[in-house]
Amino acid sequence: MNIINSLEWRYATKKFNPSKKLSNQQINTLKSAFNLTPTSFGLQPVKMIIICDKELQEKFVEHSYYQRQVADASHLLVLCIEDDTTSEDINAYFDLEKKVRNIDESVIAGFRKQLIDMYKNKSIEDRQLSAIYQTYIILGNLMTVCAVEKIDAIPMEGFVPEKIDALLNLKEQNLKSVLLLPVGFRADDDIMGDMKKVRKPLNETIIEIIK
Amino acid sequence: MNIINSLEWRYATKKFNPSKKLSNQQINTLKSAFNLTPTSFGLQPVKMIIICDKELQEKFVEHSYYQRQVADASHLLVLCIEDDTTSEDINAYFDLEKKVRNIDESVIAGFRKQLIDMYKNKSIEDRQLSAIYQTYIILGNLMTVCAVEKIDAIPMEGFVPEKIDALLNLKEQNLKSVLLLPVGFRADDDIMGDMKKVRKPLNETIIEIIK
Repeated sequence: MNIINSLEWRYATKKFNPSKKLSNQQINTLKSAFNLTPTSFGLQPVKMIIICDKELQEKFVEHSYYQRQVADASHLLVLCIEDDTTSEDINAYFDLEKKVRNIDESVIAGFRKQLIDMYKNKSIEDRQLSAIYQTYIILGNLMTVCAVEKIDAIPMEGFVPEKIDALLNLKEQNLKSVLLLPVGFRADDDIMGDMKKVRKPLNETIIEIIK
Repeated sequence: MNIINSLEWRYATKKFNPSKKLSNQQINTLKSAFNLTPTSFGLQPVKMIIICDKELQEKFVEHSYYQRQVADASHLLVLCIEDDTTSEDINAYFDLEKKVRNIDESVIAGFRKQLIDMYKNKSIEDRQLSAIYQTYIILGNLMTVCAVEKIDAIPMEGFVPEKIDALLNLKEQNLKSVLLLPVGFRADDDIMGDMKKVRKPLNETIIEIIK
Protein backbone atom coordinates (compact mmCIF):
# COMPACT_ATOMS: atom_id res chain seq x y z
CA MET A 1 0.00 0.00 0.00
CA ASN A 2 1.56 3.33 -0.96
CA ILE A 3 1.56 6.34 1.33
CA ILE A 4 -1.36 8.07 -0.42
CA ASN A 5 -3.51 4.93 -0.10
CA SER A 6 -2.64 4.94 3.61
CA LEU A 7 -3.68 8.58 3.98
CA GLU A 8 -6.91 7.78 2.12
CA TRP A 9 -7.53 4.84 4.45
CA ARG A 10 -7.32 6.91 7.63
CA TYR A 11 -10.24 8.93 8.96
CA ALA A 12 -11.24 10.56 12.24
CA THR A 13 -12.55 7.46 13.98
CA LYS A 14 -15.93 8.09 15.54
CA LYS A 15 -16.38 4.68 17.17
CA PHE A 16 -13.65 2.37 18.40
CA ASN A 17 -13.86 -1.35 19.05
CA PRO A 18 -13.30 -1.29 22.82
CA SER A 19 -12.09 -4.87 23.04
CA LYS A 20 -9.36 -4.70 20.39
CA LYS A 21 -5.96 -3.73 21.77
CA LEU A 22 -2.81 -2.40 20.16
CA SER A 23 0.14 -4.78 20.43
CA ASN A 24 3.29 -3.88 22.35
CA GLN A 25 5.05 -3.59 19.03
CA GLN A 26 2.51 -1.06 17.79
CA ILE A 27 2.85 0.96 20.99
CA ASN A 28 6.63 0.89 20.65
CA THR A 29 6.30 2.19 17.08
CA LEU A 30 4.18 5.12 18.33
CA LYS A 31 6.67 5.85 21.10
CA SER A 32 9.61 5.91 18.71
CA ALA A 33 7.68 7.95 16.16
CA PHE A 34 6.77 10.49 18.84
CA ASN A 35 10.37 10.82 19.93
CA LEU A 36 11.72 11.03 16.38
CA THR A 37 9.40 13.89 15.40
CA PRO A 38 11.51 16.93 14.53
CA THR A 39 10.98 19.88 16.88
CA SER A 40 12.08 23.49 16.70
CA PHE A 41 15.86 23.61 17.31
CA GLY A 42 15.57 20.00 18.47
CA LEU A 43 14.51 21.11 21.95
CA GLN A 44 11.60 18.65 22.42
CA PRO A 45 9.63 20.81 24.91
CA VAL A 46 6.97 18.11 24.91
CA LYS A 47 5.88 14.91 26.60
CA MET A 48 3.48 12.17 25.57
CA ILE A 49 1.33 10.38 28.13
CA ILE A 50 0.15 6.91 27.08
CA ILE A 51 -2.93 5.77 28.93
CA CYS A 52 -4.39 2.28 28.87
CA ASP A 53 -6.63 2.25 31.94
CA LYS A 54 -10.37 2.00 31.31
CA GLU A 55 -11.30 3.55 34.65
CA LEU A 56 -9.12 6.58 34.04
CA GLN A 57 -10.15 6.81 30.37
CA GLU A 58 -13.82 6.89 31.43
CA LYS A 59 -13.03 9.99 33.50
CA PHE A 60 -11.92 11.79 30.33
CA VAL A 61 -15.37 11.47 28.76
CA GLU A 62 -17.12 14.26 30.66
CA HIS A 63 -14.19 16.62 29.98
CA SER A 64 -14.16 15.77 26.26
CA TYR A 65 -17.68 16.88 25.40
CA TYR A 66 -18.84 13.31 25.91
CA GLN A 67 -16.94 11.94 22.95
CA ARG A 68 -16.67 8.23 23.78
CA GLN A 69 -13.47 7.67 21.81
CA VAL A 70 -11.30 8.70 24.79
CA ALA A 71 -12.71 5.74 26.75
CA ASP A 72 -13.26 3.19 24.00
CA ALA A 73 -9.92 3.52 22.23
CA SER A 74 -7.29 0.91 23.01
CA HIS A 75 -4.90 3.62 24.20
CA LEU A 76 -5.29 7.33 24.79
CA LEU A 77 -2.33 9.54 23.92
CA VAL A 78 -2.10 12.94 25.62
CA LEU A 79 0.30 15.39 23.99
CA CYS A 80 1.64 17.89 26.52
CA ILE A 81 3.98 20.84 26.58
CA GLU A 82 6.41 21.62 29.33
CA ASP A 83 5.42 24.77 31.24
CA ASP A 84 8.45 26.64 30.00
CA THR A 85 11.62 26.24 27.96
CA THR A 86 14.42 27.46 30.21
CA SER A 87 18.13 28.08 29.74
CA GLU A 88 18.66 24.79 31.61
CA ASP A 89 16.59 22.98 28.97
CA ILE A 90 18.61 24.54 26.18
CA ASN A 91 21.88 23.74 27.91
CA ALA A 92 20.71 20.15 28.42
CA TYR A 93 20.04 19.89 24.67
CA PHE A 94 23.52 21.09 23.72
CA ASP A 95 25.15 18.88 26.37
CA LEU A 96 23.26 15.90 24.91
CA GLU A 97 24.29 16.89 21.37
CA LYS A 98 27.96 17.08 22.40
CA LYS A 99 27.75 13.62 23.94
CA VAL A 100 25.78 11.94 21.14
CA ARG A 101 27.81 13.48 18.34
CA ASN A 102 31.11 13.57 20.19
CA ILE A 103 31.76 17.20 19.35
CA ASP A 104 33.69 19.86 21.20
CA GLU A 105 32.13 22.81 23.05
CA SER A 106 33.95 25.21 20.75
CA VAL A 107 31.86 23.96 17.81
CA ILE A 108 28.53 24.79 19.41
CA ALA A 109 29.33 27.51 21.98
CA GLY A 110 28.24 30.39 19.73
CA PHE A 111 24.92 28.81 18.80
CA ARG A 112 24.30 27.75 22.41
CA LYS A 113 24.59 31.37 23.58
CA GLN A 114 22.51 32.64 20.65
CA LEU A 115 19.66 30.23 21.33
CA ILE A 116 19.63 30.88 25.08
CA ASP A 117 19.46 34.62 24.41
CA MET A 118 16.72 34.17 21.78
CA TYR A 119 14.52 32.20 24.21
CA LYS A 120 15.22 34.62 27.10
CA ASN A 121 14.03 37.49 24.94
CA LYS A 122 10.69 35.80 24.21
CA SER A 123 7.76 36.11 26.61
CA ILE A 124 6.74 32.94 28.43
CA GLU A 125 3.53 33.00 26.34
CA ASP A 126 5.61 32.91 23.17
CA ARG A 127 7.78 30.10 24.50
CA GLN A 128 4.64 28.13 25.34
CA LEU A 129 3.12 28.87 21.94
CA SER A 130 6.26 27.59 20.25
CA ALA A 131 5.96 24.39 22.30
CA ILE A 132 2.28 24.09 21.34
CA TYR A 133 3.25 24.28 17.65
CA GLN A 134 5.51 21.27 18.20
CA THR A 135 2.58 19.20 19.54
CA TYR A 136 0.78 19.83 16.23
CA ILE A 137 3.83 18.65 14.26
CA ILE A 138 3.82 15.53 16.43
CA LEU A 139 0.10 15.08 15.81
CA GLY A 140 0.65 15.29 12.05
CA ASN A 141 3.49 12.79 12.21
CA LEU A 142 1.67 10.36 14.51
CA MET A 143 -1.53 10.34 12.46
CA THR A 144 0.47 9.47 9.35
CA VAL A 145 2.44 6.79 11.18
CA CYS A 146 -0.86 5.37 12.45
CA ALA A 147 -2.20 5.32 8.88
CA VAL A 148 0.86 3.46 7.64
CA GLU A 149 0.60 0.97 10.50
CA LYS A 150 -3.19 0.53 10.04
CA ILE A 151 -3.90 1.96 13.46
CA ASP A 152 -7.09 3.99 13.76
CA ALA A 153 -6.96 7.37 15.47
CA ILE A 154 -8.86 10.58 16.02
CA PRO A 155 -7.16 13.92 16.67
CA MET A 156 -8.98 15.87 19.39
CA GLU A 157 -8.74 19.52 20.34
CA GLY A 158 -12.23 19.29 21.86
CA PHE A 159 -11.62 18.82 25.57
CA VAL A 160 -11.14 21.00 28.64
CA PRO A 161 -7.36 21.12 29.22
CA GLU A 162 -7.64 22.43 32.80
CA LYS A 163 -9.78 19.44 33.77
CA ILE A 164 -7.43 16.96 32.14
CA ASP A 165 -4.42 18.66 33.74
CA ALA A 166 -6.10 18.27 37.14
CA LEU A 167 -7.09 14.66 36.45
CA LEU A 168 -3.50 13.71 35.59
CA ASN A 169 -1.79 15.99 38.14
CA LEU A 170 0.04 17.67 35.29
CA LYS A 171 0.64 20.95 37.12
CA GLU A 172 2.82 19.14 39.66
CA GLN A 173 4.81 17.77 36.74
CA ASN A 174 5.14 21.21 35.07
CA LEU A 175 3.11 20.02 32.10
CA LYS A 176 0.03 21.24 30.24
CA SER A 177 -2.18 19.07 28.02
CA VAL A 178 -2.64 20.34 24.44
CA LEU A 179 -4.02 17.54 22.28
CA LEU A 180 -5.60 14.11 22.67
CA LEU A 181 -5.12 11.24 20.25
CA PRO A 182 -7.18 8.14 21.01
CA VAL A 183 -5.68 5.21 19.06
CA GLY A 184 -6.90 1.68 18.45
CA PHE A 185 -9.19 -0.01 15.98
CA ARG A 186 -12.44 1.15 14.39
CA ALA A 187 -15.67 -0.56 15.35
CA ASP A 188 -17.21 -2.59 12.52
CA ASP A 189 -20.32 -0.42 12.69
CA ASP A 190 -18.59 2.97 12.58
CA ILE A 191 -20.40 4.35 9.56
CA MET A 192 -17.85 7.17 9.25
CA GLY A 193 -15.29 4.61 8.11
CA ASP A 194 -17.10 4.15 4.80
CA MET A 195 -17.82 7.83 4.16
CA LYS A 196 -16.10 9.57 1.26
CA LYS A 197 -13.46 12.10 2.24
CA VAL A 198 -14.47 15.75 1.99
CA ARG A 199 -11.61 17.76 0.52
CA LYS A 200 -11.42 20.87 -1.60
CA PRO A 201 -10.14 20.15 -5.13
CA LEU A 202 -6.35 20.50 -5.46
CA ASN A 203 -6.68 23.52 -7.74
CA GLU A 204 -8.31 25.41 -4.86
CA THR A 205 -5.68 24.58 -2.24
CA ILE A 206 -2.44 24.56 -4.22
CA ILE A 207 -0.75 27.36 -6.12
CA GLU A 208 2.11 26.41 -8.43
CA ILE A 209 4.87 28.75 -9.50
CA ILE A 210 6.91 26.61 -11.86
CA LYS A 211 9.39 28.05 -14.31
CA MET B 1 11.94 -0.13 5.04
CA ASN B 2 9.59 0.25 7.98
CA ILE B 3 8.23 3.59 9.12
CA ILE B 4 10.68 3.98 12.01
CA ASN B 5 13.62 3.38 9.67
CA SER B 6 12.17 6.09 7.42
CA LEU B 7 11.90 8.52 10.34
CA GLU B 8 15.49 7.66 11.31
CA TRP B 9 16.61 8.29 7.72
CA ARG B 10 15.20 11.81 7.55
CA TYR B 11 17.04 14.83 8.94
CA ALA B 12 16.84 18.60 8.57
CA THR B 13 18.77 18.90 5.33
CA LYS B 14 21.45 21.56 5.53
CA LYS B 15 22.67 21.33 1.95
CA PHE B 16 20.68 20.28 -1.08
CA ASN B 17 21.97 19.03 -4.41
CA PRO B 18 20.76 21.92 -6.59
CA SER B 19 20.76 19.93 -9.81
CA LYS B 20 18.63 17.00 -8.66
CA LYS B 21 14.91 17.49 -9.25
CA LEU B 22 11.84 15.84 -7.82
CA SER B 23 9.81 13.92 -10.42
CA ASN B 24 6.26 14.91 -11.32
CA GLN B 25 5.09 11.79 -9.52
CA GLN B 26 6.86 12.87 -6.33
CA ILE B 27 5.33 16.34 -6.57
CA ASN B 28 1.90 14.81 -7.09
CA THR B 29 2.41 12.70 -3.97
CA LEU B 30 3.22 15.83 -1.95
CA LYS B 31 0.18 17.63 -3.36
CA SER B 32 -2.16 14.80 -2.46
CA ALA B 33 -0.56 14.36 0.96
CA PHE B 34 -1.01 18.07 1.65
CA ASN B 35 -4.66 17.95 0.67
CA LEU B 36 -5.37 14.76 2.61
CA THR B 37 -3.96 16.15 5.87
CA PRO B 38 -6.75 16.26 8.45
CA THR B 39 -7.62 19.79 9.58
CA SER B 40 -9.77 21.10 12.40
CA PHE B 41 -13.44 20.42 11.48
CA GLY B 42 -12.21 19.65 7.97
CA LEU B 43 -12.19 23.36 7.09
CA GLN B 44 -8.77 23.44 5.34
CA PRO B 45 -8.07 27.16 6.02
CA VAL B 46 -4.71 26.68 4.31
CA LYS B 47 -2.96 26.82 0.97
CA MET B 48 0.33 25.41 -0.25
CA ILE B 49 2.46 27.27 -2.77
CA ILE B 50 4.86 25.09 -4.74
CA ILE B 51 7.78 27.01 -6.19
CA CYS B 52 10.27 25.70 -8.70
CA ASP B 53 11.83 28.89 -10.06
CA LYS B 54 15.50 29.46 -9.27
CA GLU B 55 15.29 33.22 -9.76
CA LEU B 56 12.38 33.52 -7.33
CA GLN B 57 13.90 31.00 -4.88
CA GLU B 58 17.11 33.09 -4.78
CA LYS B 59 15.02 36.05 -3.62
CA PHE B 60 13.94 34.02 -0.57
CA VAL B 61 17.53 33.70 0.67
CA GLU B 62 17.91 37.19 2.15
CA HIS B 63 14.57 36.87 3.93
CA SER B 64 15.44 33.44 5.34
CA TYR B 65 18.52 34.41 7.35
CA TYR B 66 20.66 33.43 4.39
CA GLN B 67 19.86 29.75 4.61
CA ARG B 68 20.67 28.50 1.12
CA GLN B 69 18.20 25.60 1.22
CA VAL B 70 15.35 27.81 -0.03
CA ALA B 71 17.26 28.39 -3.25
CA ASP B 72 19.08 25.09 -3.67
CA ALA B 73 16.17 22.74 -2.99
CA SER B 74 14.44 21.22 -5.99
CA HIS B 75 11.12 22.76 -4.91
CA LEU B 76 10.21 25.21 -2.19
CA LEU B 77 6.88 24.65 -0.42
CA VAL B 78 5.27 27.63 1.31
CA LEU B 79 2.53 26.75 3.80
CA CYS B 80 0.04 29.60 4.14
CA ILE B 81 -3.09 30.35 6.09
CA GLU B 82 -6.10 32.18 4.71
CA ASP B 83 -6.53 35.60 6.36
CA ASP B 84 -9.74 34.54 8.05
CA THR B 85 -12.21 31.67 8.31
CA THR B 86 -15.60 33.18 7.54
CA SER B 87 -19.17 31.91 7.66
CA GLU B 88 -18.92 31.61 3.86
CA ASP B 89 -15.94 29.27 4.25
CA ILE B 90 -17.84 27.13 6.73
CA ASN B 91 -20.93 27.08 4.54
CA ALA B 92 -18.77 26.08 1.57
CA TYR B 93 -17.42 23.15 3.59
CA PHE B 94 -20.88 21.85 4.47
CA ASP B 95 -22.12 22.36 0.92
CA LEU B 96 -19.16 20.32 -0.32
CA GLU B 97 -19.82 17.62 2.29
CA LYS B 98 -23.47 17.37 1.22
CA LYS B 99 -22.41 16.95 -2.39
CA VAL B 100 -19.56 14.49 -1.82
CA ARG B 101 -21.47 12.34 0.66
CA ASN B 102 -24.89 12.81 -0.91
CA ILE B 103 -26.53 13.74 2.38
CA ASP B 104 -29.51 15.92 3.15
CA GLU B 105 -29.33 19.37 4.75
CA SER B 106 -31.40 18.14 7.68
CA VAL B 107 -28.53 15.82 8.69
CA ILE B 108 -25.97 18.59 9.02
CA ALA B 109 -28.05 21.76 9.64
CA GLY B 110 -27.56 21.73 13.41
CA PHE B 111 -23.82 21.26 13.27
CA ARG B 112 -23.53 23.85 10.46
CA LYS B 113 -25.14 26.48 12.68
CA GLN B 114 -23.13 25.44 15.73
CA LEU B 115 -19.81 25.70 13.88
CA ILE B 116 -20.66 29.06 12.29
CA ASP B 117 -21.59 30.42 15.73
CA MET B 118 -18.45 28.98 17.31
CA TYR B 119 -16.19 30.67 14.75
CA LYS B 120 -18.11 33.96 14.93
CA ASN B 121 -17.54 34.04 18.68
CA LYS B 122 -13.78 33.70 18.32
CA SER B 123 -11.56 36.73 17.72
CA ILE B 124 -9.90 36.95 14.31
CA GLU B 125 -6.58 36.33 16.10
CA ASP B 126 -7.93 33.05 17.46
CA ARG B 127 -9.27 32.03 14.06
CA GLN B 128 -5.86 32.76 12.54
CA LEU B 129 -4.09 30.88 15.33
CA SER B 130 -6.31 27.86 14.71
CA ALA B 131 -5.36 28.02 11.02
CA ILE B 132 -1.67 28.30 11.96
CA TYR B 133 -1.98 25.09 14.03
CA GLN B 134 -3.21 23.33 10.90
CA THR B 135 -0.05 24.31 9.00
CA TYR B 136 1.99 22.54 11.69
CA ILE B 137 -0.12 19.37 11.32
CA ILE B 138 0.53 19.59 7.58
CA LEU B 139 4.24 20.08 8.22
CA GLY B 140 4.31 16.96 10.41
CA ASN B 141 2.46 14.93 7.82
CA LEU B 142 4.53 16.17 4.87
CA MET B 143 7.87 15.54 6.58
CA THR B 144 6.84 11.95 7.28
CA VAL B 145 5.54 11.47 3.75
CA CYS B 146 8.85 12.85 2.45
CA ALA B 147 10.74 10.39 4.67
CA VAL B 148 8.69 7.46 3.34
CA GLU B 149 9.25 8.63 -0.24
CA LYS B 150 12.98 9.26 0.33
CA ILE B 151 12.60 12.96 -0.33
CA ASP B 152 14.86 15.23 1.70
CA ALA B 153 13.36 18.25 3.41
CA ILE B 154 13.98 20.89 6.03
CA PRO B 155 11.22 22.54 8.05
CA MET B 156 11.80 26.28 8.40
CA GLU B 157 10.24 28.79 10.76
CA GLY B 158 13.30 31.01 10.33
CA PHE B 159 12.24 33.57 7.74
CA VAL B 160 10.54 36.97 7.67
CA PRO B 161 6.90 36.28 6.79
CA GLU B 162 6.11 39.91 5.86
CA LYS B 163 8.90 39.90 3.28
CA ILE B 164 7.79 36.59 1.78
CA ASP B 165 4.16 37.75 1.74
CA ALA B 166 5.26 40.84 -0.21
CA LEU B 167 7.48 38.82 -2.56
CA LEU B 168 4.59 36.49 -3.47
CA ASN B 169 1.81 39.13 -3.36
CA LEU B 170 0.07 37.08 -0.71
CA LYS B 171 -1.86 39.99 0.79
CA GLU B 172 -3.76 40.43 -2.47
CA GLN B 173 -4.68 36.75 -2.28
CA ASN B 174 -5.78 37.01 1.39
CA LEU B 175 -3.00 34.68 2.45
CA LYS B 176 -0.19 34.78 5.03
CA SER B 177 2.94 32.62 4.93
CA VAL B 178 3.59 30.53 8.05
CA LEU B 179 6.15 27.84 7.25
CA LEU B 180 8.65 26.96 4.55
CA LEU B 181 9.56 23.44 3.52
CA PRO B 182 12.34 23.17 0.95
CA VAL B 183 12.24 19.66 -0.56
CA GLY B 184 14.61 17.81 -2.85
CA PHE B 185 17.73 15.71 -2.42
CA ARG B 186 20.63 16.05 -0.01
CA ALA B 187 24.03 17.04 -1.35
CA ASP B 188 26.64 14.26 -1.14
CA ASP B 189 28.78 16.48 1.06
CA ASP B 190 26.08 17.51 3.54
CA ILE B 191 27.86 16.35 6.70
CA MET B 192 24.61 16.66 8.69
CA GLY B 193 23.26 13.63 6.80
CA ASP B 194 25.68 11.33 8.62
CA MET B 195 25.27 12.86 12.09
CA LYS B 196 23.61 10.84 14.83
CA LYS B 197 20.17 12.04 15.85
CA VAL B 198 19.97 13.97 19.10
CA ARG B 199 16.91 12.86 21.07
CA LYS B 200 16.11 12.63 24.74
CA PRO B 201 15.76 9.02 25.93
CA LEU B 202 12.19 7.70 25.74
CA ASN B 203 11.92 7.46 29.53
CA GLU B 204 12.33 11.23 29.71
CA THR B 205 9.69 12.10 27.10
CA ILE B 206 7.02 9.45 27.62
CA ILE B 207 4.88 8.76 30.67
CA GLU B 208 2.93 5.49 30.72
CA ILE B 209 -0.23 4.91 32.71
CA ILE B 210 -1.01 1.28 31.98
CA LYS B 211 -3.35 -0.79 34.08
